[in-house]
Amino acid sequence: MDYASESLRLHYGWRGKIEVVSRVPLDTQEELSLAYTPGVAEPCLEIQRDLAKSYALTRRSDIVAIVTDGTAVLGLGDIGPEAAMPVMEGKAVLFKELGGVDAVPLCIRSKDVDEIVDTVRLLAGSFGGVNLEDISAPRCFEIERRLKECCDIPIFHDDQHGTAVVVLAALMNAFRYTGKKPAQVSAVINGAGAAGIAVARLLVDYGIADIVLCDSQGAVYKGRDGLNSEKQKISEITNFEIRKGSLADVMAGTDLFIGVSAPGCVTQEMVANMNKDPIVFPMANPTPEIMPDLAKAGGAVVVGTGRSDLPNQINNTLAFPGIFRGTLDAYASEINEQMKIAAAGAIAGYVADGELSEDYIMPSPLSRGVAASVAKAVRDAAEASGVARSEKYGR
Amino acid sequence: MDYASESLRLHYGWRGKIEVVSRVPLDTQEELSLAYTPGVAEPCLEIQRDLAKSYALTRRSDIVAIVTDGTAVLGLGDIGPEAAMPVMEGKAVLFKELGGVDAVPLCIRSKDVDEIVDTVRLLAGSFGGVNLEDISAPRCFEIERRLKECCDIPIFHDDQHGTAVVVLAALMNAFRYTGKKPAQVSAVINGAGAAGIAVARLLVDYGIADIVLCDSQGAVYKGRDGLNSEKQKISEITNFEIRKGSLADVMAGTDLFIGVSAPGCVTQEMVANMNKDPIVFPMANPTPEIMPDLAKAGGAVVVGTGRSDLPNQINNTLAFPGIFRGTLDAYASEINEQMKIAAAGAIAGYVADGELSEDYIMPSPLSRGVAASVAKAVRDAAEASGVARSEKYGR
Repeated sequence: MDYASESLRLHYGWRGKIEVVSRVPLDTQEELSLAYTPGVAEPCLEIQRDLAKSYALTRRSDIVAIVTDGTAVLGLGDIGPEAAMPVMEGKAVLFKELGGVDAVPLCIRSKDVDEIVDTVRLLAGSFGGVNLEDISAPRCFEIERRLKECCDIPIFHDDQHGTAVVVLAALMNAFRYTGKKPAQVSAVINGAGAAGIAVARLLVDYGIADIVLCDSQGAVYKGRDGLNSEKQKISEITNFEIRKGSLADVMAGTDLFIGVSAPGCVTQEMVANMNKDPIVFPMANPTPEIMPDLAKAGGAVVVGTGRSDLPNQINNTLAFPGIFRGTLDAYASEINEQMKIAAAGAIAGYVADGELSEDYIMPSPLSRGVAASVAKAVRDAAEASGVARSEKYGR
Repeated sequence: MDYASESLRLHYGWRGKIEVVSRVPLDTQEELSLAYTPGVAEPCLEIQRDLAKSYALTRRSDIVAIVTDGTAVLGLGDIGPEAAMPVMEGKAVLFKELGGVDAVPLCIRSKDVDEIVDTVRLLAGSFGGVNLEDISAPRCFEIERRLKECCDIPIFHDDQHGTAVVVLAALMNAFRYTGKKPAQVSAVINGAGAAGIAVARLLVDYGIADIVLCDSQGAVYKGRDGLNSEKQKISEITNFEIRKGSLADVMAGTDLFIGVSAPGCVTQEMVANMNKDPIVFPMANPTPEIMPDLAKAGGAVVVGTGRSDLPNQINNTLAFPGIFRGTLDAYASEINEQMKIAAAGAIAGYVADGELSEDYIMPSPLSRGVAASVAKAVRDAAEASGVARSEKYGR
């Protein structure tokens, strides 16, 4: 099927992919008096007395904002806020259908960090959380960091953390399949933007000690000239041996390749130069860093990509609906590392022992049970890590 | 019924009065590829090529933002953004159920005019219009004026213009019932906040030449000490005879009283001192400036209030759903005076000749046909007045 033209045709007919509907009856004067004036004054006053009641008395415990400035949309780049909206509406559909989370897309007409932060900060009382989306690096890091500081609701940049969670899930199952251990593997991540840096951080937290991040200049190492502040920070917690050189140089003799970079930048020979039975996740979209058949010819034992038409699709859709559902269910103040690792574990655990194979390490993005499983794990992790606020905000 | 406690109980059970749902199927990989990646790239690029296409390819032609800072909510005053949300959700329910308009409540955590203007301005690409709500005067005037200047979508402060439209509708039918003519009546409006000033402006535009606005100091007249800028402006187009004195002073010898002020400030005697067969609209909520039976005892021929349990309820609910529906249907750039007067005419016209009586000058706020009738009239007026943009933005 020609997805481009068929999708365009459908979009012209859909009149939007999301819709705001009423949850209450409104056929009689009495119903109007209860849902609206004069009755509504009482829930308003209840919230004025205790702001925490806004979670119980409004939609706030089920609704998040999807916020973008349209600067890094899909593989399309900086297409602007209006043009980003079809993606954000699609994301809202996935939030709802998979996670039971209401999502309102807010596409901001500014690329200015201060303006984006202010807009979200001022609206934080209307939502239970914020999913930042498709904001270009390195602004995305500063925006997320500042919003976490000034907002009392969880802030989650999906391009970073959603990606990191699904990569970790795939890795957990690749370990499960191959018998490799996190502490014993060495890893190369190619791509040092939002996704690559977040993947590196989560893998460090998960216990993979030997990681080298590469950008277009090759290995990122402590003290390299011209590193931006995010790369400087990540160089403090990776590449402790200060390996230098090209991607091919640093891939040689490692066990794991993760690509969030550019099509075709990995050759069969580069995979062949890795350790025996390497795990290879070339996730560039739509064309991977190396096609799975070539990677396997080079010796890869498990290959995962971002593509839905290839085995082992490593896709954020498995993560964000359940992560936000669980976060909202816990009334969590943030989405911390424990919650992300728990989410990855739930995704990985959704593949049963008997199903696990080299071509089936990840559930389908449309598996309806994944999000519920992730939500439960995330909620439990929020409670265990002390960021749940159910007692204060719950019904 | 005790609306307060019953409404509170219901709100605890409702889990929000609105909900965001999906309009598209998402059960198969193919459906995912059409609503989301990779297919969604094509509608994105189409909008990037022509921003006007955002109306056809996203929900934008059916969705508005309800924006408040929570400073003037119902009769409750400045209760803050979170506490305002139950009212805004109720408003969103009315938008949807009566006008078929999706509405997203955005409660802003700031009372600063610049911050409120910036927030809305930066989000204008995500909505087809903005309904400003329950923002206190005089900030509401500046916020609306500045947003109209910097936004390419219609901006409508309902407390001003929605109120003005329903007052005009009631007046049209009071004229129809009594045979009075706009050009021949003299009017007093008590209350010089957002509603009073907007009512005065619309009545001037409708052709009522002799209007005196009163505030707590009595008549507003040109040159009075201490007038704020909005009252100064309105003093230029009302009270040409420079009448001074108390409300009682200026009401004497007039034909029409409109109250958007405080409970009980009008006596039977004050009505008795008006001209013969006066029209009296004491709309203070929940307690009118004078109760209808007293007004009638004073000689009033038609009385309308804001209350649902009294005849002739003059309620914004009759106006805003249809006004925004018609505005969106016309892809109008603004909501101008012609559109407001057309809306009032449609509301008034919804009461058939045979139904019209002193106790039935206004349709019920829940009459399902009113909004469609208003929408049609508003759309036609938008086209006639040159602010429709269907050719550019329509499908």
